[in-house]
Amino acid sequence: MKCTRCRRPAEVKIRAHNSAFCRECYLLFFRRRVVRTIEKEKMFDHEARILVAVSGGKDSLALWDVLASEGFQTVGFHLALGIGAYSRRSLDKTRSFAESRHLDLRVHDLSREGLAVPDMMQATRRSPCAACGTAKRHFFDAAALESSCNVIATGHNLDDEAARLLGNVLRWQIDHLARQRPVLETSHEKFVRKVKPLYLTSELETASFAFLRGLEYVVEECPNAAGATQLTYKALLDRLEATSPGSKLGFVHEFVTRGSAGFVAQQRASAPRTCGGCGMPAFAELCSFCSLRAEITRKQSDPKPDAPPR
Amino acid sequence: MKCTRCRRPAEVKIRAHNSAFCRECYLLFFRRRVVRTIEKEKMFDHEARILVAVSGGKDSLALWDVLASEGFQTVGFHLALGIGAYSRRSLDKTRSFAESRHLDLRVHDLSREGLAVPDMMQATRRSPCAACGTAKRHFFDAAALESSCNVIATGHNLDDEAARLLGNVLRWQIDHLARQRPVLETSHEKFVRKVKPLYLTSELETASFAFLRGLEYVVEECPNAAGATQLTYKALLDRLEATSPGSKLGFVHEFVTRGSAGFVAQQRASAPRTCGGCGMPAFAELCSFCSLRAEITRKQSDPKPDAPPR
Repeated sequence: MKCTRCRRPAEVKIRAHNSAFCRECYLLFFRRRVVRTIEKEKMFDHEARILVAVSGGKDSLALWDVLASEGFQTVGFHLALGIGAYSRRSLDKTRSFAESRHLDLRVHDLSREGLAVPDMMQATRRSPCAACGTAKRHFFDAAALESSCNVIATGHNLDDEAARLLGNVLRWQIDHLARQRPVLETSHEKFVRKVKPLYLTSELETASFAFLRGLEYVVEECPNAAGATQLTYKALLDRLEATSPGSKLGFVHEFVTRGSAGFVAQQRASAPRTCGGCGMPAFAELCSFCSLRAEITRKQSDPKPDAPPR
Repeated sequence: MKCTRCRRPAEVKIRAHNSAFCRECYLLFFRRRVVRTIEKEKMFDHEARILVAVSGGKDSLALWDVLASEGFQTVGFHLALGIGAYSRRSLDKTRSFAESRHLDLRVHDLSREGLAVPDMMQATRRSPCAACGTAKRHFFDAAALESSCNVIATGHNLDDEAARLLGNVLRWQIDHLARQRPVLETSHEKFVRKVKPLYLTSELETASFAFLRGLEYVVEECPNAAGATQLTYKALLDRLEATSPGSKLGFVHEFVTRGSAGFVAQQRASAPRTCGGCGMPAFAELCSFCSLRAEITRKQSDPKPDAPPR
């Protein structure tokens, strides 16, 4: 197998692109794809200050690595979730990465305010993933505002987007479909633009980049992810991809270029209001994070179990 | 396991509906669901003359059986495809069914005009399923007009619709998505309304009906179907259904009630014109059947292979 670009022996084969690459050409191919996605979707330019949400996994570290080496102005932000050893290892990997490259990293620890994921799980009936997602959105926004960033970039990859899209489509969740875009903006003054520069880059591609680039990342999945429906969807899409390479890419790419317009046109959601608790954008009196926090505070101050049914 | 309706021992379990039934209650449940679908979607009433497209498989025979026993005015139509023993068995089963119930059956044999599926496969580069589908649409319409039917009912079941929907969604084929409806109508005077009364009824449900009702049908799949992408989609959806029963039903039902509106609004297709060949509705100068027939006649009168590339 030879490199599609330079004909030297190839080290990575990307079936979805019907290509193979040597180490050097692959790193170039990967970076170029990310940069082209950023340009094509008008995500940001070199003037922007970008908060990169870094979990310590391969995707977010690969993203930060590319953005930093392409000369974008980045601030790394890590939300410590308090999920035991998994979270400690995630923070360690993120710190080592930032230190080795002299990159600016901010860390916020959820356990400091009693919001570690296990605490939230105990205090609410929500799934850990729902509570964790709500907290992430809030603290990413807060961190961006605090560090004067006008863009938040996350490491969501093609596999994440395809699985989310499949889930949204299987239930025809119009509002979710309307919001599933590589660039998300609203008119609210405190809404920070969200972008996903890796949305067309598969998990295999970011893993290959991380490996060939020698990135040290947390390999294990979050222990709460086991059994999540998202993983069922990923497995189904993997089977499809094995039969027809490029299926995931086509699914997500055609959705963004052709499919999503109809959902955006139908969207019922109005412009966001301002949360009475934290002043951030909200679609009710309180934003979803403030109502989650209120629910947790209530349960923690009055830890009686719910009355059993009579 | 007891019957959900009458508490006698159950013979069928339908996980998607979280129900189990004895033989008698199941036949009742199945017929009611079909009749409710017909009423809810305003497919037709007892005044209509319905051409039932009958392949000899479980779905179309179950459909004809329900429609006839519910007192609808039906004419059965079987298109003999000329696919060897499979087609002979299909015609036999269809004939026996019609004769045993004294139902009106019309048969059209594709081989009489040199259009048997194997002949079409030899003479065109189209896939057998594409050519067969085009021929079916044409002859169903022609048979409906000849026998003064104002509706064509086909036996497409939930599994067929879910697989087709998944295929359309994976490629975001807006026009196909806009046309995937349980009732299809256009303004063309020769367009016969197409309806799918079993579109919310799973393959398992029609198979159970056919079994408990003692219908004799062709069990084998069409030999050309092997390897068809449709089967890959069906297998994926079966895996999903096993994990979360009711997924297929939700996918198709929510699409029809919520999802499809956006695609219909975006649809580019204009009202059909009239085919210059056969006078039926067409979206070009010739309808797709007449251009298929022209292609075949050309190849058959001049059977030279295409010139090899120089």
